[in-house]
Amino acid sequence: MNGNELYLKAKEVMPGGVNSSTRVNKALGMPFYVSKGKGSKLWDMEGREYLDMSCAHGAGLLGNGHPAIDEALHKAIEIGYVNSFETEYHERLARIITESIPCADKIRFCSAGSEATMHLIRACRGFTGKNKIIRVEGHFHGYHELIFIGGQPPASEFPRNRERPYIESAGIPEEFANLIIPVPCNDIAALQEAVDKHGSDTALLILEPVNFNTAGIRAQQEYLEFARKITKENGIVLFFDEIQSAFKKSFGAAQSHLGVTPDVCTIGKSIGGGLPLSAFCGKAEIMDTYQPLGPVQHSGTFNAHLIPILAGLAFVQEAAKPEFYPKLRALEKQFHEGVDAIIEKHDLNMIVPHFGARYNILLGRKTPALRYEETFCHNKDVMLKILKACFDKGIYFHDYGGGPSHNGYSIQHTSEDIAKVLGVLESVLVAHRNEM
Amino acid sequence: MNGNELYLKAKEVMPGGVNSSTRVNKALGMPFYVSKGKGSKLWDMEGREYLDMSCAHGAGLLGNGHPAIDEALHKAIEIGYVNSFETEYHERLARIITESIPCADKIRFCSAGSEATMHLIRACRGFTGKNKIIRVEGHFHGYHELIFIGGQPPASEFPRNRERPYIESAGIPEEFANLIIPVPCNDIAALQEAVDKHGSDTALLILEPVNFNTAGIRAQQEYLEFARKITKENGIVLFFDEIQSAFKKSFGAAQSHLGVTPDVCTIGKSIGGGLPLSAFCGKAEIMDTYQPLGPVQHSGTFNAHLIPILAGLAFVQEAAKPEFYPKLRALEKQFHEGVDAIIEKHDLNMIVPHFGARYNILLGRKTPALRYEETFCHNKDVMLKILKACFDKGIYFHDYGGGPSHNGYSIQHTSEDIAKVLGVLESVLVAHRNEM
Repeated sequence: MNGNELYLKAKEVMPGGVNSSTRVNKALGMPFYVSKGKGSKLWDMEGREYLDMSCAHGAGLLGNGHPAIDEALHKAIEIGYVNSFETEYHERLARIITESIPCADKIRFCSAGSEATMHLIRACRGFTGKNKIIRVEGHFHGYHELIFIGGQPPASEFPRNRERPYIESAGIPEEFANLIIPVPCNDIAALQEAVDKHGSDTALLILEPVNFNTAGIRAQQEYLEFARKITKENGIVLFFDEIQSAFKKSFGAAQSHLGVTPDVCTIGKSIGGGLPLSAFCGKAEIMDTYQPLGPVQHSGTFNAHLIPILAGLAFVQEAAKPEFYPKLRALEKQFHEGVDAIIEKHDLNMIVPHFGARYNILLGRKTPALRYEETFCHNKDVMLKILKACFDKGIYFHDYGGGPSHNGYSIQHTSEDIAKVLGVLESVLVAHRNEM
Repeated sequence: MNGNELYLKAKEVMPGGVNSSTRVNKALGMPFYVSKGKGSKLWDMEGREYLDMSCAHGAGLLGNGHPAIDEALHKAIEIGYVNSFETEYHERLARIITESIPCADKIRFCSAGSEATMHLIRACRGFTGKNKIIRVEGHFHGYHELIFIGGQPPASEFPRNRERPYIESAGIPEEFANLIIPVPCNDIAALQEAVDKHGSDTALLILEPVNFNTAGIRAQQEYLEFARKITKENGIVLFFDEIQSAFKKSFGAAQSHLGVTPDVCTIGKSIGGGLPLSAFCGKAEIMDTYQPLGPVQHSGTFNAHLIPILAGLAFVQEAAKPEFYPKLRALEKQFHEGVDAIIEKHDLNMIVPHFGARYNILLGRKTPALRYEETFCHNKDVMLKILKACFDKGIYFHDYGGGPSHNGYSIQHTSEDIAKVLGVLESVLVAHRNEM
């Protein structure tokens, strides 16, 4: 069966033929069906080989298939993958991660990143007795009713989003939107104003300290420090969503690099070594609001399933090896020096912000965006053409509908892989130079 | 390290020492830490053996460790467990399950059962353009803000729950409770009244067609038929939560036995063969509201991860074997004839309702409860004493805080296992006869 035949069959039994709306790749006009992965490579249904420059939205920091994860799966088989029980492995992983993340006195594990933000928002509300959420435009915190509002509105909803937060999916009632206060990133006065107006009703300020989901907009140091100060003064929980940024640049979270410690944070993606594992952690006083210690419920049969927990232990053991981050940093240096040289040589109207092993491609400007609306210069149609051309030359980037979202590489990528990507990128970008 | 030592260490790094509030076993005063599982058996940290009569809240229908799942894990290793891609295995599992469930034209897979109800409720709202939810007291549909309201209120909240739905966790805003209309089970007049009053604002009626979470209260045939009729007449989606009931009695969902086909349903637990897999499915016109076909977003890196999908395929291949359900039914017959004989012989004030491979123990009455409040006769403290006494004799039931919730066995249990359980149960129940 080839990919086209599979797509026809899959559409009969799954909406759009996929289990996740964004898996219909807009650059290809169909999902990228994969038959096998190994290290930095993927193979499609026809057996064609691709270099994987997406790495599972950030979950594939170990690459496709990895001896340490294989070993974890063998261990799971030996134990009988006992399901819905706590084990010594849970405690061990919890201890390693809490020791590596400044805000994390205590932690709990779940499968999806969306679960992590959802359960932690509940604790913030339970802890403060307040309900509103101040959130930063351009940041993403999961596909659920509590927060899939006001984050990434279309340009046509601007600046109305700040008065009437844009609901990002049909089926989310207005009642949820009324609790969301979107603010522009890096705007201290706007944050001050939001707290002045809503602080006494606000449970949390949530943000990506290093944004990956919209053009890698970085919260500036001064903004993060102000966020820390004003939340503390107003009894608001400071919530860093580090699902993407954790373990991407160093062993732990981005908060260590930034010198600003939130009250709580979520982590995910890479920590499961390619298996479904996310977590939420924070100060003991907030985490202890969960039952059986406090009044906030968080339960579930599949929470912290033994297999992803064993894979998580394998991941941290790999990532703790002294050569791990130096190798990733060498790939980062090679890739970005190469990309920046291409941009300069051909005077391309684009920028590639990065943090650790992940990066964004933003078209239409040469300087980093500081606010969400500064990314509207990005042309999604041109981006899709670029990604399709790369795909045809054997390089797979995820499409994100053509948006300026994130891609990345893994510990199994080589210098030769990066060189190959740079070669393809140069020819493709130059071909689309006048459309950027 | 023994269980007590592990508990002390685990409490330092995880709230309550667990990743799920209900894993602090109230009968034991601590979590049941497990070091290994095999077939119908579990071993604790000290190497003591227990017969598993919980089976992972229903996820362990194949038991602990199973050759078919081991093989699925080996296959995942071979493929490189490519993460966040669609594969031919996704289509194959989707096809097998949709063919076996009457309402399921199309399906999508996720990890947790809570995700399944959450994402499907969003589609029901998107499809109808309405927001309210009519739900049945005593039924459970996941730990999240959309529906963890008004389901299992304490007796002190009765009958107020019907006017002011009880919020089942701190941190869930009142605004969300205003969207919930709880109705008593098996009360046709009350359902009619709820629809008369709220029908034009109501997106869905959600219920467990076979309840497992509170004493196995069964929706009566007439009630289900009325629910089907009135929802159809009023543009309300009929939503069966079959996360527990699917594949427990036969290959497919309980709706096949009941002769009432809902518009949509969720399934989960056993379908992953002990790995984290759930799904939501329904009529094409509703499922096609998901992007990229419609306006409802449902996405996520870890949705339908390849490893649980391969395990799901292994599960359906096992469950489709001609000997599978006859074997489960033989265990069911042996267990319930045995339990009923014990109850009759000793005139015990209790009942053990069952459906397929799962059952509830309800103390304080001899006839099935038809409504949630009819289970208030159940004494949780006595239940915890019974479960602790069984545990001390090597039989593990999950505690559910002493509530009349569900336990069950697996395809790997034997007639000897059931005979052993019956022997222990008789002595323990008789010892607590006068407290029931």
